[in-house]
Amino acid sequence: MPQFLSISDADFESRFTALLSAKREDSPDVDDVVAGIIRDVRARGDAAVIELTTKFDRMELTPETLRFSEAEIDAHCAAVPAAERQALELAAERIRAYHVRQVPQDAFWTDPDGASLGWRWSAVSAAGLYVPGGLASYPSSVLMNAIPAKVAGVERLAICVPTPDGKANPLVLLAARLSGVDEVYRIGGAQAIAALAYGTESIAPVDKITGPGNAFVAAAKRRVFGKVGIDMIAGPSEILVIADGDNDPDWLALDLLSQAEHDESAQSILITDSPELASAVTEAVEKRLETLERRVIAGASWRDFGAVIIVDDMDQAAALSNRIAPEHLELCVADPQALSEKCIHAGAIFLGAWTPEAIGDYVGGPNHVLPTARSARFSSGLSVMDFIKRTTLAQMTPAALAAIGPAAETLATSESLEAHGLSVRARLDRLNRH
Amino acid sequence: MPQFLSISDADFESRFTALLSAKREDSPDVDDVVAGIIRDVRARGDAAVIELTTKFDRMELTPETLRFSEAEIDAHCAAVPAAERQALELAAERIRAYHVRQVPQDAFWTDPDGASLGWRWSAVSAAGLYVPGGLASYPSSVLMNAIPAKVAGVERLAICVPTPDGKANPLVLLAARLSGVDEVYRIGGAQAIAALAYGTESIAPVDKITGPGNAFVAAAKRRVFGKVGIDMIAGPSEILVIADGDNDPDWLALDLLSQAEHDESAQSILITDSPELASAVTEAVEKRLETLERRVIAGASWRDFGAVIIVDDMDQAAALSNRIAPEHLELCVADPQALSEKCIHAGAIFLGAWTPEAIGDYVGGPNHVLPTARSARFSSGLSVMDFIKRTTLAQMTPAALAAIGPAAETLATSESLEAHGLSVRARLDRLNRH
Repeated sequence: MPQFLSISDADFESRFTALLSAKREDSPDVDDVVAGIIRDVRARGDAAVIELTTKFDRMELTPETLRFSEAEIDAHCAAVPAAERQALELAAERIRAYHVRQVPQDAFWTDPDGASLGWRWSAVSAAGLYVPGGLASYPSSVLMNAIPAKVAGVERLAICVPTPDGKANPLVLLAARLSGVDEVYRIGGAQAIAALAYGTESIAPVDKITGPGNAFVAAAKRRVFGKVGIDMIAGPSEILVIADGDNDPDWLALDLLSQAEHDESAQSILITDSPELASAVTEAVEKRLETLERRVIAGASWRDFGAVIIVDDMDQAAALSNRIAPEHLELCVADPQALSEKCIHAGAIFLGAWTPEAIGDYVGGPNHVLPTARSARFSSGLSVMDFIKRTTLAQMTPAALAAIGPAAETLATSESLEAHGLSVRARLDRLNRH
Repeated sequence: MPQFLSISDADFESRFTALLSAKREDSPDVDDVVAGIIRDVRARGDAAVIELTTKFDRMELTPETLRFSEAEIDAHCAAVPAAERQALELAAERIRAYHVRQVPQDAFWTDPDGASLGWRWSAVSAAGLYVPGGLASYPSSVLMNAIPAKVAGVERLAICVPTPDGKANPLVLLAARLSGVDEVYRIGGAQAIAALAYGTESIAPVDKITGPGNAFVAAAKRRVFGKVGIDMIAGPSEILVIADGDNDPDWLALDLLSQAEHDESAQSILITDSPELASAVTEAVEKRLETLERRVIAGASWRDFGAVIIVDDMDQAAALSNRIAPEHLELCVADPQALSEKCIHAGAIFLGAWTPEAIGDYVGGPNHVLPTARSARFSSGLSVMDFIKRTTLAQMTPAALAAIGPAAETLATSESLEAHGLSVRARLDRLNRH
């Protein structure tokens, strides 16, 4: 059974705080192993990557077969059934349409002092996307990472996806093709991250690496950060459902379970002002858990980390939501727009009971790579912004420099940075001589 | 003497690659010390912070005196001479005017399937800004960090600035006041970062920490990342000046020295198509180094890391600039706008010889916190964006769910995530029953 809390209980604050700070994941300390793998790939390039792939993925590669050929990708794509192809195409189209709107504008203007100022956005030249192999090899994640990169204008987009025992996921390859990915390598683990960051004879280095992965991949991403950019290190998935009494308990149960089935460390929380709905939803969860394919995983997550919280009103619900800062937030209430304006710390909000979170995982359009573990307090989901960067622009005229230069000189002097001040003074002196 | 390279030399490529990969900074490994300090502050709060301040800053604090009182800040601000106050006010006003333009728009639209989609930006609730004490205590950095935070809408902005031996920098306090900073603490080092991230009895925790600092501060920021957001870990400063023959060598020499004087690890590079200008600038640097106050630091930087590169034309200059991805890029050429469009990897571009980089450090308007060590390939300078985050929004109608839900169900099934599919199917079944 999940935890039950009521905001009117005397021990609510201490129990809610404990819920917020519960450690849900024990990351194994693989940092030393990963450091060794990165050193090895830097020193020996392809040879190291090939040896490590033999060891971990039980398959023999050569520098020529590290990368999927176009013909191989064609063959895999042709094997995808029509219904799945069409679903993937619809998802790609909708994700692209959403992300195109994120591309920000350049700016350049002249202010009253005559100084021209602005900025210009440009894309990262080359990006690498990690895609896990095996059970958690999700074609939807390929779309969610690759499409924003291509919309941003990344020229060269490489994917690494391990194929243990040589088994490739055709949907992953089709998703790569639909997203415009340029290169697909059948390698994984820390060796793939090292190859993307530092390059090998066969794999050119990239500037930015994104995508989910296991503890080895996460540790490798942390280690290569600085040499290249990385996206967030994602923790286990979370959902918070805020619901009033006017809801179908089974719908909400399935929404809670759709996070719980990801991972035993996932967390599903229901906040409601209706004790009756709370009971009905927990009963519906138990009933669904009797037959759900992933009932062992979902059941463990719900039992160990699930929670049901009773509040007096929806303002209290919003306040608790802001403390939780959930990755996914469903608002199943009469006026979800109004409530959403009070929920300022959340990765993604799903408005109304007709918007199950699963829509956002696949075809809604917004990204499904979202901040976990309360980091929505200070960070955002993946977007076009992760694949572009801003160069600021400034252009003075002699008159503009005359207007604002003396203040720069004064501040440089106060900071004891003489050359800074002199670089302005030398120019001002030229003006004064004329 | 700096290095001289010519693009027509046979060994150019290997020497340029070596220049790019030269290690300019040996960070001492202080990670264990910092881990201990963070543990101590988490365990003992104020008491640990006070003891560590006694040890490192040679001053006795109490929980009541950790924070500057308003009266103390008033008294320090009153001590600032009028010229410096006015310069700081001009800088604050110009930085604010620039950053106000960075605030992005929210969006919400309805697409042809009837799905309403969008996003909403919101500010980080509380941010902490680290300001070094002693020699590198720069009031301009307070403005550059605090103003974007306040423009973003951060409600609570705290500063930590150590005051070794009790000596405060009045300009730093005035800059904090002009920026709208809410709390100023006289603490520094890893203990200040730990207090901001985890909170103590007297200091409430924040959600995001920015600002420069020494190796201890940098290591502490890395360690608390995840618990809170952080900005970049900055390396030593850099400038690249691209100049044609029609320039005053002394101006360019001073621009190169204004980076070199920051730090012996700073790097100043000149690229020109004029061998005559190259000689004249190096002579001018030597002449200025005879009298410059910080000539020991600037001279070491120029000797160890400075470089002069001769190219045949400005397209070559732009291509080399993109490989360097400089923090600061000055374009002292006839048509700087045109050349700037070819320079896509740079933190900040200064257009034309009347725009010395020092203008950007103080009063230009754009931020002076910029990506170093080639990270302009994948990251941007500090901005309003660092203090806000995006929540994505999605709202289906029954008709929209009927249109796109089946594709989500198909993809969920293909990823073996049954509850995801069922959460959509349960709603579609309701529609089908009507």
